[in-house]
Amino acid sequence: MAGNSFGTLFRITTFGESHGEALGGIIDGCLPGIELDFEKIQYEMSRRKPGQSAIVTQRKENDEVQFLSGIFEGKTTGTPIGFIIPNTNQKSEDYSHIKDNYRPSHADYVYEKKYGIRDYRGGGRSSARETASRVVGGAIAKQMLPEIKINAFVSSVGDIFIDKPYQDLDFSKIESNPVRCPDEKSAAKMEAYIKEIRKQGDTIGGTVTCVIQNVPVGLGEPVFDKLHAELGKAMLSINAVKGFEYGSGFCGAKMKGSEHNDLHNTDGTTQSNLSGGIQGGISNGMDIYFRVAFKPVATIMQEQETLDNQGNIVAMQGKGRHDPCVVPRAVPIVEAMAAMVLADYFLLNKIY
Amino acid sequence: MAGNSFGTLFRITTFGESHGEALGGIIDGCLPGIELDFEKIQYEMSRRKPGQSAIVTQRKENDEVQFLSGIFEGKTTGTPIGFIIPNTNQKSEDYSHIKDNYRPSHADYVYEKKYGIRDYRGGGRSSARETASRVVGGAIAKQMLPEIKINAFVSSVGDIFIDKPYQDLDFSKIESNPVRCPDEKSAAKMEAYIKEIRKQGDTIGGTVTCVIQNVPVGLGEPVFDKLHAELGKAMLSINAVKGFEYGSGFCGAKMKGSEHNDLHNTDGTTQSNLSGGIQGGISNGMDIYFRVAFKPVATIMQEQETLDNQGNIVAMQGKGRHDPCVVPRAVPIVEAMAAMVLADYFLLNKIY
Amino acid sequence: MAGNSFGTLFRITTFGESHGEALGGIIDGCLPGIELDFEKIQYEMSRRKPGQSAIVTQRKENDEVQFLSGIFEGKTTGTPIGFIIPNTNQKSEDYSHIKDNYRPSHADYVYEKKYGIRDYRGGGRSSARETASRVVGGAIAKQMLPEIKINAFVSSVGDIFIDKPYQDLDFSKIESNPVRCPDEKSAAKMEAYIKEIRKQGDTIGGTVTCVIQNVPVGLGEPVFDKLHAELGKAMLSINAVKGFEYGSGFCGAKMKGSEHNDLHNTDGTTQSNLSGGIQGGISNGMDIYFRVAFKPVATIMQEQETLDNQGNIVAMQGKGRHDPCVVPRAVPIVEAMAAMVLADYFLLNKIY
Amino acid sequence: MAGNSFGTLFRITTFGESHGEALGGIIDGCLPGIELDFEKIQYEMSRRKPGQSAIVTQRKENDEVQFLSGIFEGKTTGTPIGFIIPNTNQKSEDYSHIKDNYRPSHADYVYEKKYGIRDYRGGGRSSARETASRVVGGAIAKQMLPEIKINAFVSSVGDIFIDKPYQDLDFSKIESNPVRCPDEKSAAKMEAYIKEIRKQGDTIGGTVTCVIQNVPVGLGEPVFDKLHAELGKAMLSINAVKGFEYGSGFCGAKMKGSEHNDLHNTDGTTQSNLSGGIQGGISNGMDIYFRVAFKPVATIMQEQETLDNQGNIVAMQGKGRHDPCVVPRAVPIVEAMAAMVLADYFLLNKIY
Repeated sequence: MAGNSFGTLFRITTFGESHGEALGGIIDGCLPGIELDFEKIQYEMSRRKPGQSAIVTQRKENDEVQFLSGIFEGKTTGTPIGFIIPNTNQKSEDYSHIKDNYRPSHADYVYEKKYGIRDYRGGGRSSARETASRVVGGAIAKQMLPEIKINAFVSSVGDIFIDKPYQDLDFSKIESNPVRCPDEKSAAKMEAYIKEIRKQGDTIGGTVTCVIQNVPVGLGEPVFDKLHAELGKAMLSINAVKGFEYGSGFCGAKMKGSEHNDLHNTDGTTQSNLSGGIQGGISNGMDIYFRVAFKPVATIMQEQETLDNQGNIVAMQGKGRHDPCVVPRAVPIVEAMAAMVLADYFLLNKIY
Repeated sequence: MAGNSFGTLFRITTFGESHGEALGGIIDGCLPGIELDFEKIQYEMSRRKPGQSAIVTQRKENDEVQFLSGIFEGKTTGTPIGFIIPNTNQKSEDYSHIKDNYRPSHADYVYEKKYGIRDYRGGGRSSARETASRVVGGAIAKQMLPEIKINAFVSSVGDIFIDKPYQDLDFSKIESNPVRCPDEKSAAKMEAYIKEIRKQGDTIGGTVTCVIQNVPVGLGEPVFDKLHAELGKAMLSINAVKGFEYGSGFCGAKMKGSEHNDLHNTDGTTQSNLSGGIQGGISNGMDIYFRVAFKPVATIMQEQETLDNQGNIVAMQGKGRHDPCVVPRAVPIVEAMAAMVLADYFLLNKIY
Repeated sequence: MAGNSFGTLFRITTFGESHGEALGGIIDGCLPGIELDFEKIQYEMSRRKPGQSAIVTQRKENDEVQFLSGIFEGKTTGTPIGFIIPNTNQKSEDYSHIKDNYRPSHADYVYEKKYGIRDYRGGGRSSARETASRVVGGAIAKQMLPEIKINAFVSSVGDIFIDKPYQDLDFSKIESNPVRCPDEKSAAKMEAYIKEIRKQGDTIGGTVTCVIQNVPVGLGEPVFDKLHAELGKAMLSINAVKGFEYGSGFCGAKMKGSEHNDLHNTDGTTQSNLSGGIQGGISNGMDIYFRVAFKPVATIMQEQETLDNQGNIVAMQGKGRHDPCVVPRAVPIVEAMAAMVLADYFLLNKIY
Repeated sequence: MAGNSFGTLFRITTFGESHGEALGGIIDGCLPGIELDFEKIQYEMSRRKPGQSAIVTQRKENDEVQFLSGIFEGKTTGTPIGFIIPNTNQKSEDYSHIKDNYRPSHADYVYEKKYGIRDYRGGGRSSARETASRVVGGAIAKQMLPEIKINAFVSSVGDIFIDKPYQDLDFSKIESNPVRCPDEKSAAKMEAYIKEIRKQGDTIGGTVTCVIQNVPVGLGEPVFDKLHAELGKAMLSINAVKGFEYGSGFCGAKMKGSEHNDLHNTDGTTQSNLSGGIQGGISNGMDIYFRVAFKPVATIMQEQETLDNQGNIVAMQGKGRHDPCVVPRAVPIVEAMAAMVLADYFLLNKIY
């Protein structure tokens, strides 16, 4: 456990700082013979990249993936897939305002204390830019599992939330608005609210809901590597995530057993699905759904008190990229992590 | 990842079914030279065991741990600690009502589909009885980390919750009532409510809050093995858990950056602690706190429709042990998993 | 990597000291639905146990395995198989001659330096008694892979060696003599020689050859987890092993490519098999064969100079059990480790 | 265990085919604050690269390493070190003679059977070119452990071997001849012999001996992850390796205990060192030494019978790069793997 790998048989290892030469990674264990659709991979990258709409950071990143191995004549070969994502225009930036300061609610302080050294260019390794590599892994995992449907969407921004069950939503509308909220009314409110937040130089948190459909029975490894435990770890490893719940989640903690139990139909499906598609850590064939909480981005365009490395509190003004709400861009990352978890269990439980 | 191990350098592997000969496990990686207090270990067992109070299951289990290795003249030797917990009085029970039925919201159905065979005596491996082995591991982890304070308590049962921040609670009162709620008023309400639920033959969910104090800066392995990601996985691997949040959690998703950021003091501590003691996946020295959601126990003492293995829906009446609210007994399990996660990172990050 | 587990998907974790309460282990990942033949398991134990013949140690050990979980109505259930092997008559022994001494070429010195504490009863954890647990794991792995034939035998003792290729040997004769050498002439010589060594109060090394037949094409995970690399690690983890070679081995280092290359037949088999059934780390369907070197047992019944824990050199006389040649008893251990390696790759490469 | 990673806390993952865009890897877990000497890294690369002398393959490879992350202002930061080694002039080669053929004693056949697809450009992933990435990892591991001395050298080529103990050799002469043999007389004979082999269009095997000095007591994790077991696996994972022995090795199997035991001195060192610096899987502070057997390279410049993918035996003439003896170039690879094993145990056993 050196920290930069995820998964057992479908395994991604990532590298890269926000302002170094390049990000990248290695995907080890992808099944051979998969004809990759590179446009789909690049499409997922475009969903994550900054600058894609008026409500996210305007930092320009091209995020073009270059594959270096593991693919021959368009198909995966079963050998590790190495890839890089060059950092194109980050190098000339000015970090003088960060260099000696530990920005509040960033990882600057703990990195310096832990490692005794800090790459102060942007967030370095702790930057969410690292997730670009995850999106590559997820895009390939999705193509390894074409029958599985994974749909994530923004379910709340601040206090604005979709007040419908996911079954009443049309997932084809997720990409129809910059918020990635399939409920158009909520989407409009969220978009307006994010714009207001941006004007204030502030940021706002939100939640992403993810629904995984068409999952076979039997994925999951009790007792410690339960399917939802691994999904939870995957989500909690994404920058800014503060919470994870699946099925009934925290609401389930308020319920009675007589209300919560999912009665079976004769075909093994269940009438309700408060379990969230997983029993005892093993998929039961029903929809898996979960919700992920994102805190607001720590970098705000307001003056804040900040500790410097001399032990002084100084005033620091946020500069550069302002990402008022990271949640729309987190949607493809949530999907990517979910896809990689599923790919891993497909291999572990040999359902392929 | 065969499923029954947790941790990298401090690593527990467990075995055992609810009604087999014995449960047990192996703790690999405990530091040598630790003088074990066996009464403390047995005390943790007694906190988890059934039959300890009027509001939990009356099943009788002695849960006496027998250590078989790794300890010499009362001290750990650095070699693996093997232990067993004999199942004393489970064997004579009658399982005829379970044998051919897939109980709703239990793992019966998925185990049979996944493995093609099911140990129908009680929940078999999926029974929460497995967590007894975890409590042993946690009790030893706690003794390996004497300076760390880990306190979990029941923070809600159904709709009843403690409406104070944890800083206003007196942890020494946790064990003063059978609910393990340090707020006496809330505790009384919860206890009364659980008794009512028990009369109804029903069950109720709840939440456990855990606070970890005196943690050094630097525990955690970005980017995938963030400290809170591993804590989350640990908690989600406990039976009946549906959600995990740390620091501001799901509330944080409603907040603005200007509200959420934890400003530093000159000594590196922070004025607020919405981060929950972890930045970028690394402990920052502040209190770590998190909340875990437990669904209601699936076994209720009411008649329920149940699928049998012939594809028929039959009426099944709950029998035997009725555990109206598992949450008080979950408190030591939450602590145990937290202690083992911390022990693992202490070794990984060589803070000992 | 806490040290006491082996394998990824078929995974054994062992515990136990030579003179503690019990040895034991957990086998995690065995396929469900395997009808275990317990007599076969006990038979493998009897092949390893001391006191089985005139040429091995006369220490009495019953080595009866007690299974505690993972088996229901005689079949594996897919859940972890916990087992113990009680230490029956070791407790009353006298260790006063060992307690303060670091026996030459034993692990006494390094254990005390590494852990700061030593269980001086016998070899503690470093005793070869630990391999009893491996034999249990191997016996189960063998039953999981009934089609695979694994035959190990003693190929040399001291300077006496079988001067025939394994193809000319009748494996059914391995158990016909106490040396476990299928070549009767060599066996007689070896037996006589070991008896002579015993009289001298000395010990002697030897080699075990192992042949694995009926292996499918495709087992192995390049580039680091090559099949022979894992086999090598498995063998080198056995007490007293000093070397491992497969196929042409060290002889291959003297050969020319034109001699060494294995030319194909039209069905993919090869005319020669200097490769030893593995190409590029992947099984090619031909026989896998390898050879393992065991040094002589360090405990001799002669006076030797020994370091004590006060830094003095003292004379120490070997006492108690004298095992003049451990190699015959190593045969089932080599088979057990080989079986577990194969079981792991069968699961990893889903050939089942 | 997806196959392309090695190590637990100091962990390398590699990617790349012999004729793809680039090779590369990620080194995860290197200590922070290490001031890297890039010339030393490139020097190790030059020791491995083809075309370095008259006795190795004349294939031209520049093997220039480009670091992409994990290093800031010349120092390691504790974050993963990503690197690539572009394949510069491999792309224009002609593979028509390989494309449909399974070369004898190459991995062509097993890769195609295992994965159902084969990258036929050179050996693809099974090419020894992959070891270039390992040399990068080893060069960094060496710099993380400046006090440890690792010296590997060619100890035999065919039947020519150094007939002295390593203690009588001057390691500073290893690089004084193209064979990397510190014994000048043997070196001259070996060189002449390799030239003769080259003229014949043939290849020859050999052995590499490696000596590790200045190792602290206490590295190693019994019982499965013994230090020599991991070293053995590391060596056996190198292309063309057929055997590994440490300390007395296979010779030890011919010895008596009274000859083999290493008697202690009063300071804990031993008078002899047949144990090879490791007792019970744990380093004892004495020199660690081991020997690795390499078979002859399979590609010969002679006509050979070959199986094609239609099931026909055809005549195939070796073409292109002829590497008559790979052993001199294997020296830095052996050192690199040894350095990474040691780095891993330094972190696991926190000796830093």
